[in-house]
Amino acid sequence: MTTRRFVIGVMGRGENALAKDVRAAEELGERIAREGWVLLTGGRNAGVMAAANRGAKRVAGSLTVGVLPSSGGPYADVSPDVDVAIFTGMGDARDAVNVLSSDVVVVCGAAGAGTAAEAALAVKSKRRLVLLDPTPEAAAFLTSLDPRVSIASAAAEVIALILARDWGSE
Amino acid sequence: MTTRRFVIGVMGRGENALAKDVRAAEELGERIAREGWVLLTGGRNAGVMAAANRGAKRVAGSLTVGVLPSSGGPYADVSPDVDVAIFTGMGDARDAVNVLSSDVVVVCGAAGAGTAAEAALAVKSKRRLVLLDPTPEAAAFLTSLDPRVSIASAAAEVIALILARDWGSE
Amino acid sequence: MTTRRFVIGVMGRGENALAKDVRAAEELGERIAREGWVLLTGGRNAGVMAAANRGAKRVAGSLTVGVLPSSGGPYADVSPDVDVAIFTGMGDARDAVNVLSSDVVVVCGAAGAGTAAEAALAVKSKRRLVLLDPTPEAAAFLTSLDPRVSIASAAAEVIALILARDWGSE
Amino acid sequence: MTTRRFVIGVMGRGENALAKDVRAAEELGERIAREGWVLLTGGRNAGVMAAANRGAKRVAGSLTVGVLPSSGGPYADVSPDVDVAIFTGMGDARDAVNVLSSDVVVVCGAAGAGTAAEAALAVKSKRRLVLLDPTPEAAAFLTSLDPRVSIASAAAEVIALILARDWGSE
Repeated sequence: MTTRRFVIGVMGRGENALAKDVRAAEELGERIAREGWVLLTGGRNAGVMAAANRGAKRVAGSLTVGVLPSSGGPYADVSPDVDVAIFTGMGDARDAVNVLSSDVVVVCGAAGAGTAAEAALAVKSKRRLVLLDPTPEAAAFLTSLDPRVSIASAAAEVIALILARDWGSE
Repeated sequence: MTTRRFVIGVMGRGENALAKDVRAAEELGERIAREGWVLLTGGRNAGVMAAANRGAKRVAGSLTVGVLPSSGGPYADVSPDVDVAIFTGMGDARDAVNVLSSDVVVVCGAAGAGTAAEAALAVKSKRRLVLLDPTPEAAAFLTSLDPRVSIASAAAEVIALILARDWGSE
Repeated sequence: MTTRRFVIGVMGRGENALAKDVRAAEELGERIAREGWVLLTGGRNAGVMAAANRGAKRVAGSLTVGVLPSSGGPYADVSPDVDVAIFTGMGDARDAVNVLSSDVVVVCGAAGAGTAAEAALAVKSKRRLVLLDPTPEAAAFLTSLDPRVSIASAAAEVIALILARDWGSE
Repeated sequence: MTTRRFVIGVMGRGENALAKDVRAAEELGERIAREGWVLLTGGRNAGVMAAANRGAKRVAGSLTVGVLPSSGGPYADVSPDVDVAIFTGMGDARDAVNVLSSDVVVVCGAAGAGTAAEAALAVKSKRRLVLLDPTPEAAAFLTSLDPRVSIASAAAEVIALILARDWGSE
């Protein structure tokens, strides 16, 4: 027996996130928290990360973990809705930590280069990967790497996919 | 305003921990949880890490985070009392993550080489450092690096030191 | 004045590399060495990495650096043609180190998930990126992230692209 | 057969290095290069690192590798005597890379907290460790972790110790 909790990582653009992706991330964070799952993000106070944390903290008893590129300190750029901040001081190399620590990785919206790297690492590390409303190029490339990558068009569908767990043999 | 929680990192030997240090770690974990603080450890199912997590999980509503050297997977060596596992896949380089993510670092008992590295990194990263029942050599060396390093002889004294927060100007 | 040398990173599949990509990597390694540039790879004794190093070491005075996922030791899986082994012990998180340490990143052939992550990190880190004979999906996705990504169809063309340096304003 | 070269890591203080330790590092770097060994340092343009690289580059055909905490770019703080810069972007977590990549780790002079962490990691990672003119506290603590740690009082003695290789069974 273990007390280990199920962790959903939500990745996406920071400063230059699209408005539709920010809205979807906020809804997704709330739905993840309602299921009693831990929300893990890159932790910064920007874009998809901040929105997902904001949504999750609307739910009583929710838990949000941010895995940050920075080393902490009083001026660290942390979303105010992060409960536990993991400061890596590793810059972009922390992307690997986010992915490895997530039971399921959800890429929320149009991926920038950093999110694309996380998606590819999720495939390499054999983590379940769901793309929520991806660009056609990202969908084509990531499913060419692994046909089991799932594509969803709404936050509710992401939750349904995770609950169904019909991801094929692993 | 932020939901961020105060995090105490407890570091110490794994497989070859001394019995007295394991007992102290268990008491320390319980006392940290009773204060409502998050317990952060190296997360493995061994020695000081496992004992601190075991102590903390005796307290209802406690939260334990393990920052692990491994990449996860079904055979990962994780303490059963870890709520949230952060898998770094980085081996010993994850020591820097443990230290940076802790508001206070407590070294529990006689330090092996890995714990000594964490203690030195805590000084370098300007994290508060408390040595609980250290060897004379460790106490002499670490206080030679920074005279503000604190030394305690019992778990209750560690809590009192953290609560007092008279660590000098920082 | 500095003694710093120009470093070309060559990335690609390991165990499951395609035969055509292994041949191209060997030629590319040799051509990089002939230019007097340092060859940097992931260092393992497999696929594109091993082939590029083998090609480079045919050239007198060449220098090959391998940045490895492992921690070293007598059984480390290192290409025999690596001059300097950098052991990171970080697993896949070392991909970020490979990319950051390369003045130009060349992805050789059909990318697996690990190489795809490196290509995306190269875009994020604003390193020059050349794709040598990529899949159509990889070419479409990576150029959608950054239109300045170059595509080449032969090793000689990669060298010409690097020498031309007409990569647009940076 | 392999082309792998023997790597000596020289660690020590940066900005606040003692003058005597900087002189020793410069001599040590030159002597390492004369033996035909690769010099590996933390790569920054400060203190022991910069001095060791300067000494090594007085020797024709020498090779200096710097493993840096930063992510590179035009304003990176790199010693002008580094031939190959490995940019980790990992901050202090790069200390583990320096240690793992060195066949022998030499701590040059009075260690600050960062160097102390590297020395402890060298013990943990079972790399050979030589302390050149350490403080009494550092010598007492590090030999308490592992009695095989060597102590030298001059650069020439470090070279002699490495050549003798009578480090006990490993």
